[in-house]
Amino acid sequence: MMKRFVQVLAMTALVLPFAATAAEDTAYAFVAELTSEVGPRLAGSEAEARARVWAAQKLKAMGFQNVATEPFTMRGYVRGTDKARLTAPVVQHLAVTALDHSGSTPEQGIEGEVVYFATLDALKAAPEGSLAGKIAFVDHAIRPAQDGLGYGPYGQVRRAGPAIASRKGALGIVIRSVGTDSHRNPHTGVTSFPAGTAPIPAGAVSNPDADLIARLVAKGKTLRLALTLTGKSADNLPSGNVVGELPGRDPALPKILLACHLDSWDLGTGAIDDGAGCAIITAAALKAQSGGKPLRTIRVLLAGAEEIGGGGDEAYVKMHGNEPHALAMESDFGADRVWRVLTKLAPANAALGERVVAALGPMGIPLGKADPEGGADIEAIIAKQKLAMISLSQDGTHYFDLHHTPDDTLDKIDPAMLTQNVDVYAAVLGVVANEAGVIVPLE
Amino acid sequence: MMKRFVQVLAMTALVLPFAATAAEDTAYAFVAELTSEVGPRLAGSEAEARARVWAAQKLKAMGFQNVATEPFTMRGYVRGTDKARLTAPVVQHLAVTALDHSGSTPEQGIEGEVVYFATLDALKAAPEGSLAGKIAFVDHAIRPAQDGLGYGPYGQVRRAGPAIASRKGALGIVIRSVGTDSHRNPHTGVTSFPAGTAPIPAGAVSNPDADLIARLVAKGKTLRLALTLTGKSADNLPSGNVVGELPGRDPALPKILLACHLDSWDLGTGAIDDGAGCAIITAAALKAQSGGKPLRTIRVLLAGAEEIGGGGDEAYVKMHGNEPHALAMESDFGADRVWRVLTKLAPANAALGERVVAALGPMGIPLGKADPEGGADIEAIIAKQKLAMISLSQDGTHYFDLHHTPDDTLDKIDPAMLTQNVDVYAAVLGVVANEAGVIVPLE
Repeated sequence: MMKRFVQVLAMTALVLPFAATAAEDTAYAFVAELTSEVGPRLAGSEAEARARVWAAQKLKAMGFQNVATEPFTMRGYVRGTDKARLTAPVVQHLAVTALDHSGSTPEQGIEGEVVYFATLDALKAAPEGSLAGKIAFVDHAIRPAQDGLGYGPYGQVRRAGPAIASRKGALGIVIRSVGTDSHRNPHTGVTSFPAGTAPIPAGAVSNPDADLIARLVAKGKTLRLALTLTGKSADNLPSGNVVGELPGRDPALPKILLACHLDSWDLGTGAIDDGAGCAIITAAALKAQSGGKPLRTIRVLLAGAEEIGGGGDEAYVKMHGNEPHALAMESDFGADRVWRVLTKLAPANAALGERVVAALGPMGIPLGKADPEGGADIEAIIAKQKLAMISLSQDGTHYFDLHHTPDDTLDKIDPAMLTQNVDVYAAVLGVVANEAGVIVPLE
Repeated sequence: MMKRFVQVLAMTALVLPFAATAAEDTAYAFVAELTSEVGPRLAGSEAEARARVWAAQKLKAMGFQNVATEPFTMRGYVRGTDKARLTAPVVQHLAVTALDHSGSTPEQGIEGEVVYFATLDALKAAPEGSLAGKIAFVDHAIRPAQDGLGYGPYGQVRRAGPAIASRKGALGIVIRSVGTDSHRNPHTGVTSFPAGTAPIPAGAVSNPDADLIARLVAKGKTLRLALTLTGKSADNLPSGNVVGELPGRDPALPKILLACHLDSWDLGTGAIDDGAGCAIITAAALKAQSGGKPLRTIRVLLAGAEEIGGGGDEAYVKMHGNEPHALAMESDFGADRVWRVLTKLAPANAALGERVVAALGPMGIPLGKADPEGGADIEAIIAKQKLAMISLSQDGTHYFDLHHTPDDTLDKIDPAMLTQNVDVYAAVLGVVANEAGVIVPLE
């Protein structure tokens, strides 16, 4: 089997997956091709379908086996026209994006007085009905952090703010983008309206536009905003995961799962989110073969739907939730360097954890002090099987400069940093995919 | 007169123009208010008219005298819909802007095969008629330089490329933005079609989009592009200069003219181009009064039309070309620090030049080795009166990251750098506006 595979490779002369440098080049070539020849690929769209076809072909060309596309359906969002402008005290166009699952405006848009809230708590404290006929603006700003710490609390402005504004009677809501840059590129993302809460039009403006609003408010001006967001949510859109394997020497042993997501937001081309992650895990899985076939099978999961409220992780569990897994790892935090490793292992696997840390020590990567987080593409399988966890933290200082914006494009990836990720994942695989002992589930 | 003026100031308690720190605050407040409360102000538009009203009021409030608005008419451009997308080998939306004076497409746009040119010279070398029915793409990229050196040659792609493509029979042309950033913000600017050359639709895509085109071309793909640019040129649009003076102790002496331009491109809010310049010259003129009224009158010219092919400088010469001027200086290269001074003085004024250099030495600003350039707002008066020249070079390393883009917004200005400019201009004024001897025209 392997011999025939190598012959095929030699004939095509395109891929040399088992050489270290080639695996590194493979990662950059992967994300370059995905962003250029597929481009933006919103989950549930025709473009995501093209991405699946591309990914399945790519995995096969790279030497993965048992490559399969596993369809499911999901609730998605079909973007329409996104426009915003101040109409008082001055006409100024604003760079805006709809939040996915936003309510829709009519084609001609809506217009209302702006009610300014410095924080999400201030919005929560607004009296019921006080926003009737008005457009809420929430100015809560996320700041950079290496571990992306701010995305939890400040992301709540986007995730929860629109439903809160709806319950206060608002005509619509616009938030400061959940982003750390200062460019005229708004950050999209998902919001949600619980059952019983009417969806209202909900958008995010770029940070310079939010600064403008804040300056005018600080001068005591009354602002009016015209907002057009005509996109619509849609049920039962087709999506699908793509999986592939590099079989281990003992296929009966529980597998190592590496995950990323193939879908992307539609404003950019999904280079750092998460083309890079898919490039890293596939190249690392190949690189882990360079010293000979590992003991355990490595499976890659390129989830079809992560951004618009997930879906890929649950579809994976439906299909594979009863197969034995040893560990699941995900790469979905950009293309910057790995700076620490986090582990959560059963006491019986303490020595395994120490070997992982020892393998990463020479690469300048220490054991961190936090608990690992699973990541959206693997949290369902981790929860179902109570899997032990090892996660590699990428430097997220600049991640939220680009996250969910038109600026998420290939030029933002530093090939040397991408290579570092491949090397680090391969080093961890060198330990865990060769672990002969039982990798014990957590209690 | 002065006493009454100071009383008015004390009553309003808003401006303290003659204190050094207040003059520095004045500069930032000036550009903050202009960009926030007027916003984008394309020459010839209703917004530029609002900017004139604002500027005249502002100059009066700052203490300038003889404040006047001096109307003229000009050829401008009314932006329409700007859209571009690749339709083959993959559908990808591109961030595009029309170049001003671009030809117009129909509402439904045009579509054609892309013909790739790595350089403007390659476009020039294309056989006549070889572009019939096709859309030219020119990939020539400008690189950063402290003195903005690349803008001359690489700006030619924008200024001259469209007319060349038209003469080769092209349906339209798209260029790589003349910009040094890597964001999804295209750089607009003016192009021109000489008499006898038919205007064709002409746009610029952002650098990441140009990278995408280049990658697909490098892979041997045939690209098709759909382009919608519906804006139109228009003649006899109303514009106007705003002038004001701080009279010197001897009003009979030739004046010192400080210039900037009040109009801006419409994609951003004209913070660094050229709100900052207007802020710098007005604040510096005030600061130059802090040690007592200078000998010579300082006049400020806030030109109404610079971007779309000029106009303000010629209107100034029509109105004021026969009044005696000693020197003209301009600030129109962003808000970064002044790093050198350039002089071109008659031999009789060698000592004056030495005193200017001596005044700037303690500020870390040496005499540069190049000839000064007048700048678009003063070149007509310099040419007519053969004025001696002193120019202050701002650091332009990052200027073309923002130039003519949606990203030209207030947040890009570092207040400390703006203050440095004010201080440096004021130091030069301290010498030249107090020069009792004749400042001799050049031969």
